[in-house]
Amino acid sequence: MSLVARLALSLPIIQAPMAGVQDAALAIAVGSAGGLGSLPAAMLTPAALSEQLERLAQAGRPCNVNFFAHTPPLPDAGREAAWRARLAPCYGEFGIDPASIPGGPGRQPFDAQAAALVERFRPAVVSFHFGLPDEALLARVRATGALILSSATTVDEARWLAARGVDAVIAQGLEAGGHRGMFLDDDVTTQVGTFALLPQIVAAVDCPVIAAGGIVTPEGVRAALALGADAVQAGTVYLCSDEAATTPLHRAALASDAARHTALTNLFSGRPARGIVNRFMREFGPLNENAPAFPLATAAVAPLRAAAEAQGRSDFTPLWCGQNPHCPARPAAAITRWLAGVESA
Amino acid sequence: MSLVARLALSLPIIQAPMAGVQDAALAIAVGSAGGLGSLPAAMLTPAALSEQLERLAQAGRPCNVNFFAHTPPLPDAGREAAWRARLAPCYGEFGIDPASIPGGPGRQPFDAQAAALVERFRPAVVSFHFGLPDEALLARVRATGALILSSATTVDEARWLAARGVDAVIAQGLEAGGHRGMFLDDDVTTQVGTFALLPQIVAAVDCPVIAAGGIVTPEGVRAALALGADAVQAGTVYLCSDEAATTPLHRAALASDAARHTALTNLFSGRPARGIVNRFMREFGPLNENAPAFPLATAAVAPLRAAAEAQGRSDFTPLWCGQNPHCPARPAAAITRWLAGVESA
Repeated sequence: MSLVARLALSLPIIQAPMAGVQDAALAIAVGSAGGLGSLPAAMLTPAALSEQLERLAQAGRPCNVNFFAHTPPLPDAGREAAWRARLAPCYGEFGIDPASIPGGPGRQPFDAQAAALVERFRPAVVSFHFGLPDEALLARVRATGALILSSATTVDEARWLAARGVDAVIAQGLEAGGHRGMFLDDDVTTQVGTFALLPQIVAAVDCPVIAAGGIVTPEGVRAALALGADAVQAGTVYLCSDEAATTPLHRAALASDAARHTALTNLFSGRPARGIVNRFMREFGPLNENAPAFPLATAAVAPLRAAAEAQGRSDFTPLWCGQNPHCPARPAAAITRWLAGVESA
Repeated sequence: MSLVARLALSLPIIQAPMAGVQDAALAIAVGSAGGLGSLPAAMLTPAALSEQLERLAQAGRPCNVNFFAHTPPLPDAGREAAWRARLAPCYGEFGIDPASIPGGPGRQPFDAQAAALVERFRPAVVSFHFGLPDEALLARVRATGALILSSATTVDEARWLAARGVDAVIAQGLEAGGHRGMFLDDDVTTQVGTFALLPQIVAAVDCPVIAAGGIVTPEGVRAALALGADAVQAGTVYLCSDEAATTPLHRAALASDAARHTALTNLFSGRPARGIVNRFMREFGPLNENAPAFPLATAAVAPLRAAAEAQGRSDFTPLWCGQNPHCPARPAAAITRWLAGVESA
């Protein structure tokens, strides 16, 4: 059965969860238009997540809370030190003492604390990136009545998710901005464009399929529906919306010609994610096998990012963006209605 | 004005030229159904091309003749020798004497001889890959009345082609099989999926845009038209058609699960092209900076390919294929009508 129907959405539009550039405000705005807003939880403390869920609950619309489902890596001091040694010229340029940089996980996977918050706030939808949490945690989510979604970047991943009973699979085409949801393979050549991935997943699984990657216009939504999608998940198109928390530096990059050249990079987190090519990516990547494992790579670049941003430069900032960089500076509700074809631009 | 209308095609389907796996037979079959058939000329001698053009002329339908427009590289004996040294273990495995391997260009660019054949046979359409030939040669083609097409893999390439007066731009999405048409840049991170590339090119140029890459079903054709395409160029879907010259080994690979994993590789020719991942790609690539420049890389692998194929193995065969490997074993005319939505599967 259609996810859109099960959630009684009036528009087949899901706002993609985008950690770091939004909070509940964006999700609430999209929900108010009749789409499904999403809250990215991966970079929130339990206290902050609780506060955001409270805001969403008060808005009274179905919403999606998104968690990462990765297995945290074992710390590897040698690898971390070698990586920081490679970055030493950059640290020197900004007067940063490498010994002063704290480590840290960067992003937390879904855990018992998060499950308890889902049980308490009962969001209509819970989505995962990088697979699914273990069966016990997943059962706790399912028991709340939440519909469960996860991203597939290959047909094999879609089948894996469908076999575990997800309520819908998000077909994340290679065009999508931010982190690739890939979890069965780490070979980026397995990643497939939306035009090819979406119909293959539609043919491979029985559950509804949500199209993601490169969709930023009403025509794109219609095309995705023509290819068998039940709904569309759009992220990039909301990056400059009024309710997004995207920084002015990031907004400026999105509005520039530079946004036409994105690449998959593992430099900012340790996993491949699509962002606008900037100095850090040109000098060290975009994909570098020496970067620490996800999410540990975040620590080494953090002080470079802070120092560069203080100078008004996005040279070390992850400028997440899909391959179709259309980012209207408008209210998210209006963008949602426009995407769905019920309001003109 | 629509290319489909200018050519009086009854169906908005162009069969993609696929050097090495087809001749005029496939183009004639597609033309008989009301689509536009294409003849790949890049690997034909002038005599063979003349014979094929004669066959097409007798069929009496509009057709497209496709040429490569690359600039041949200067020979580099040192690079060639170093590459053959890397392949030495493979040569040894098949008992091949590396000193016995002839060099050779592999593919010829459009030249005065080819222009003379275009002037003689006057095909309705002439398309180019890797940009356009020089202005004098292009003027000779234009003077025949042929409509001129070329592939763009980025918005910049589309604008470059439109500024030179092409009659339509082929938006070649990253999903497409075979050679990337890229010509302004050799950085593969510039390559964009069809869902993102097509609407951006439609917005950037005034001429008709043809969608290519990942389109193998009537739903795909409808989606491409929804995104603003004037017509669709499809290749992979014809690879196992009755009229294709695709080898049994290639057909077997296309019908297997292996076809779900393609990658861009420069090992077979020197330029990135999408094919099914096989042993050669796994062991030496898929992209290897040491491969000779296009099209010179063809020579070194040729005897390995021949020796492996003689043993029934496709380990060294370029298994060109897009990211949506749906390859019905049917007459090409029926596939064309099915794609266009006027005949059921």
